[in-house]
Amino acid sequence: MKATTRYLTFNVPARMDFIHITGDVQQVVDESGIMEGLCLVNAMHITASVFINDDESGLHQDYKDWLEELAPHEPLSRYRHNRTGEDNGDAHHKRQIMGREVVVAVTNGRLDFGTWERIFYGEFDGRRRKRVLVKVIGE
Amino acid sequence: MKATTRYLTFNVPARMDFIHITGDVQQVVDESGIMEGLCLVNAMHITASVFINDDESGLHQDYKDWLEELAPHEPLSRYRHNRTGEDNGDAHHKRQIMGREVVVAVTNGRLDFGTWERIFYGEFDGRRRKRVLVKVIGE
Amino acid sequence: MKATTRYLTFNVPARMDFIHITGDVQQVVDESGIMEGLCLVNAMHITASVFINDDESGLHQDYKDWLEELAPHEPLSRYRHNRTGEDNGDAHHKRQIMGREVVVAVTNGRLDFGTWERIFYGEFDGRRRKRVLVKVIGE
Repeated sequence: MKATTRYLTFNVPARMDFIHITGDVQQVVDESGIMEGLCLVNAMHITASVFINDDESGLHQDYKDWLEELAPHEPLSRYRHNRTGEDNGDAHHKRQIMGREVVVAVTNGRLDFGTWERIFYGEFDGRRRKRVLVKVIGE
Repeated sequence: MKATTRYLTFNVPARMDFIHITGDVQQVVDESGIMEGLCLVNAMHITASVFINDDESGLHQDYKDWLEELAPHEPLSRYRHNRTGEDNGDAHHKRQIMGREVVVAVTNGRLDFGTWERIFYGEFDGRRRKRVLVKVIGE
Repeated sequence: MKATTRYLTFNVPARMDFIHITGDVQQVVDESGIMEGLCLVNAMHITASVFINDDESGLHQDYKDWLEELAPHEPLSRYRHNRTGEDNGDAHHKRQIMGREVVVAVTNGRLDFGTWERIFYGEFDGRRRKRVLVKVIGE
């Protein structure tokens, strides 16, 4: 069994935004030389997500509006968590809706995807440096 | 390490419905000959889910009502995504609540499940052919 | 490839609560002797979650309030599932928001975590004995 681990770094200028990372992940699979296995991609921060969905800007805006409805940023007093001096209580909630991680099949050296599947980094408390882990195991 | 990959196909007559697939997934594990490992089961479409919960029809109707509350199908104008000519903006949201994939332990050749765990394909934009990937790795 | 499987047992006195289990999971990784691989941690019950987020009590209370808003326990008649004699319809919904499982990279014998990542068992229908599966595969 082989294993390759890489850490991607992001510094998203907005509080909330989605970054397309399919190409970065496939590159790690390429470097691994693994033909059959599994690829884990996860946010290493608890106010961020990795998820798979459509690369369509209207949908991304829909997601932002919907997450803001489900877990609004303001008023900051809505969240006990913000009493610690943070202002990111909402981000911890948004991340639970969108998920921490994806696990993707690697088949014949490729991310084994349906036609429209794309991987995104979901940032909910941006404007600072954050990391995503990519680990591929297999043979 | 061994790896086996299969693609299941569904054509669900309703827009939204849940299909019990535990038997199909165990059959892939059987075919793999893998006794110890991990089994990934994921929707290959971004308006569908794979999730684990109860095989109880009342609960499934509860889920449908709740998902319709959280991300209603209508009005179609609710979603920017529908301006692309689609009418499935809601389905992309419902899928994020229910998840894309499950990873299940394979122990002694069996899906290592608690008493009531069952795997479902969750369709949110049906009436067309769609696929689920099952990949088992291990030894 | 090596594989180690362990079952953790919990009996949470409250209906809903979160239990910090990072130490228990790292101990399974230690026992496995695996240096590079993947670690699956999942609830074996369909009214419970395993999730990764902050070990901060204010945030945990925020989560409880939010989940109660999204899927209230009462009135029990809200859920068709409760017509089966159960009173845990809400718990099946809360678990879908928080997720069933996490998959964590094992790198150099350690759970490969960002600074604040911690694993929690999320109970939504407690006051009885329930199990969590931990499976580590790798080399």
